[in-house]
Amino acid sequence: MDEKITSRDNARVKYACRLAASGAFRKEEGRFFAEGRKLCCELAKDAVLEQLFYTAAAAEKWPELAALPGAHFLVEEHVAAKLADVPSPQGVFGVFRTPAHTLDEVRAGGRYLALERVQDPGNVGTLLRSAAAFGFDGVILSDGCAAPYAPKTLRASMGAAVRLPVIEAGALPPVLAAMRAKGIECLAAALYQSEPLGSAPADYPGGVCVVIGSEGQGLTGETIAACSRTVRIPMTDRVESLNAGIAGSILLWHFRGAGL
Amino acid sequence: MDEKITSRDNARVKYACRLAASGAFRKEEGRFFAEGRKLCCELAKDAVLEQLFYTAAAAEKWPELAALPGAHFLVEEHVAAKLADVPSPQGVFGVFRTPAHTLDEVRAGGRYLALERVQDPGNVGTLLRSAAAFGFDGVILSDGCAAPYAPKTLRASMGAAVRLPVIEAGALPPVLAAMRAKGIECLAAALYQSEPLGSAPADYPGGVCVVIGSEGQGLTGETIAACSRTVRIPMTDRVESLNAGIAGSILLWHFRGAGL
Repeated sequence: MDEKITSRDNARVKYACRLAASGAFRKEEGRFFAEGRKLCCELAKDAVLEQLFYTAAAAEKWPELAALPGAHFLVEEHVAAKLADVPSPQGVFGVFRTPAHTLDEVRAGGRYLALERVQDPGNVGTLLRSAAAFGFDGVILSDGCAAPYAPKTLRASMGAAVRLPVIEAGALPPVLAAMRAKGIECLAAALYQSEPLGSAPADYPGGVCVVIGSEGQGLTGETIAACSRTVRIPMTDRVESLNAGIAGSILLWHFRGAGL
Repeated sequence: MDEKITSRDNARVKYACRLAASGAFRKEEGRFFAEGRKLCCELAKDAVLEQLFYTAAAAEKWPELAALPGAHFLVEEHVAAKLADVPSPQGVFGVFRTPAHTLDEVRAGGRYLALERVQDPGNVGTLLRSAAAFGFDGVILSDGCAAPYAPKTLRASMGAAVRLPVIEAGALPPVLAAMRAKGIECLAAALYQSEPLGSAPADYPGGVCVVIGSEGQGLTGETIAACSRTVRIPMTDRVESLNAGIAGSILLWHFRGAGL
């Protein structure tokens, strides 16, 4: 144990809270904050854990926490209450270094997911988790998407945000044009003027990028125009739409990696 | 307008709140309570709307509410606040008759989803929505599942709970045995000793029932034993599991109705 923290005004605690609250601060610092025993342990496998905070009760309940890397701080319950964001907090919190990825990593033959203005953190997190599950090589987020390292997104992704490259880009059309120039097939998910998913080939040797828009608005016309094909999930008329996380995950399953 | 309600202690308001809060009371009365303009309009297409409550602001914003069936009640804002369960209430609420369905409706050649102890209302609602989307003929819920007409489940199902028969059963094994006696293939979703989904035939002329367990526990051994086949969604080792609503929806997509 490196130190015991007894004050809610402790500088490290304030720093962690600021990471949790502000996307701009996370970017500036290149760090993010996560809460929960399982989530912190999962994240620590693939991201650098710099600081771990836990209560005495958590230390007793989960002795394996002591084996995690980084500096460890015992926090009093009232300090943990300040750090906590969920209804039943476990008293375990971590500050991690954000993995840095750029569009230069996108390569021919790869399998990618691109999200345009998907604002719901639960949907972004779910889609990161499904992309990791189905062997995708990276996820590209347009501006206007929920932040991948915000607390709610991290919880929904169950740590998947550090399991595969997540690249925050600006507008998608130039990104997609660059991918197509590398031979990557870009498939827009859209309800109209599209082919049913069941008849779309699942395998693209040159690489594939599945492009999904927000639940309410779908993709912009510019982004659809920047793609090479358009696919939809056919449905009965008994529902108006599918949840965006569900629809996207079904597409990811259809275009999953070889061998799955 | 049948009446203006100015008191939070109004008998109709108290009745509606009790329907929202208690599954036992919903069963006793054969009615349920729903909140939200879109949800109430969707539900009214397929379920009997008996009483509709709305604020003056909602009546002005959505004049189409006046065309809905049932008795209409204008409620003051403080009464609406008592009925409301969501962070940004729209001031629209309805009391509906619960559609009644039984296992007698299960028929050879049909396509069913059975859930065992899926406790999360969001997952149950999402799976009802996906089952309706993909042409399933009914959903069977074991005891221990989230209540299909509870407010959170209704929100996640977006009204799908009244679009297809939802049957609340006890334990699943005898239900599955009866389905198999009718020639319906029962497929358990399980991680171990199972065949990968991609190699499972998608079409069962005698009928099919997809059986899904809870996110944490999976299916009980008895229920797996009562099924005729076992399937899993293959994944990379970069995630431990998929969200239950996601995994179930991918299975429903795979076993979707003909013509989709």
